[in-house]
Amino acid sequence: MNKTIDSLQWRYAAKRMNGQKVPADKLDNILEAIRLTATSNGLQPFTILVIEDKATREKLHAAAFKQPQVVEGSHLLVFAAWKKVTPEQIDTYFEMVYQERNLAKGSLDQYAGFLKNHFGKQTEEEQFSWASKQAYIALGTALVAAAEEKVDSTPMEGFNAEEVDSILGLNEQGMGSTALLALGYRDETADHMVNAKKVRRPKDKLFVKI
Amino acid sequence: MNKTIDSLQWRYAAKRMNGQKVPADKLDNILEAIRLTATSNGLQPFTILVIEDKATREKLHAAAFKQPQVVEGSHLLVFAAWKKVTPEQIDTYFEMVYQERNLAKGSLDQYAGFLKNHFGKQTEEEQFSWASKQAYIALGTALVAAAEEKVDSTPMEGFNAEEVDSILGLNEQGMGSTALLALGYRDETADHMVNAKKVRRPKDKLFVKI
Repeated sequence: MNKTIDSLQWRYAAKRMNGQKVPADKLDNILEAIRLTATSNGLQPFTILVIEDKATREKLHAAAFKQPQVVEGSHLLVFAAWKKVTPEQIDTYFEMVYQERNLAKGSLDQYAGFLKNHFGKQTEEEQFSWASKQAYIALGTALVAAAEEKVDSTPMEGFNAEEVDSILGLNEQGMGSTALLALGYRDETADHMVNAKKVRRPKDKLFVKI
Repeated sequence: MNKTIDSLQWRYAAKRMNGQKVPADKLDNILEAIRLTATSNGLQPFTILVIEDKATREKLHAAAFKQPQVVEGSHLLVFAAWKKVTPEQIDTYFEMVYQERNLAKGSLDQYAGFLKNHFGKQTEEEQFSWASKQAYIALGTALVAAAEEKVDSTPMEGFNAEEVDSILGLNEQGMGSTALLALGYRDETADHMVNAKKVRRPKDKLFVKI
């Protein structure tokens, strides 16, 4: 059996959480899985804000239509994607590649130039959309990694992005919030969805074999 | 140790594959993990084309800038996202929920109406962007599930979406290709990246703890 399937069978989007704290080692494993996630060209065009501070989560709670998990979980991850993909960011990435792989500086100039040209032709909206999609790959990983730690996770798109960005000062850093992920433990008494059957489109509808 | 971390440490984006076929049981596990992936409101707004047919993959190879994995893998997954989110699609989803959860028909009308109103206010571009992001959550899951099966996988955004859509007749079905994923086995001799060190942004850059 594939462990990923087990993990996804176990998980569900908890509607209520009980306030129990996710231990540091489990949180670290979830974050490390996010860090190792593949992204297009390896650029990882996002920052993940890991928010335990209650006062900050209370402000975000209001900006996320008062979804209880924001404050009933113990940590809230905010996936903040780059609004623009700049030549400077691409240079920073290649500096890291040269150092980590012990390559001569400039040896990947052609590749870097290709990326600068590629993103240079895109609108800001296209760049943010691309960066957001990369963050969603990491979101997919986080859901699996959390379930494996038997940590509940609730992904959320229902929030006022402008308010979240303003609370966290993301605009000033050239980023925008694209998804939230509450981490914590399900409240089995209060959550009416705790025993709901998982509903997914059947294989013959979701997949087309050619 | 978290198995997701192990899987992500093992995987890399294979640049060359050796033609060996991914067994049916492993492929089924990867697809089942995709099927179980969480999506916003459970809508799963995409279809995954699972392409083994060599002639079709050869056509797609040309549309994907001749990236070798398209034909050197044994299967190519095409993540095709909905271009529009229509009231009919939302109704179909809720029909499935009523049936699977044994709920009275119409009991979630208010929720369905909220979604119809929400998507009704979006442009087609916003709807496709949203659907694409949901597909990327599934892409993240697929990368982990494949690695756990010791199947190599190469996600690809480098393709001419119009050509891919035309080859597969996606437009006519209200869908557009958003990502490709080649599945197969690495060619350890031909792939110059097989032993390259994995490069990722360090924790203190990728995460901000608040």
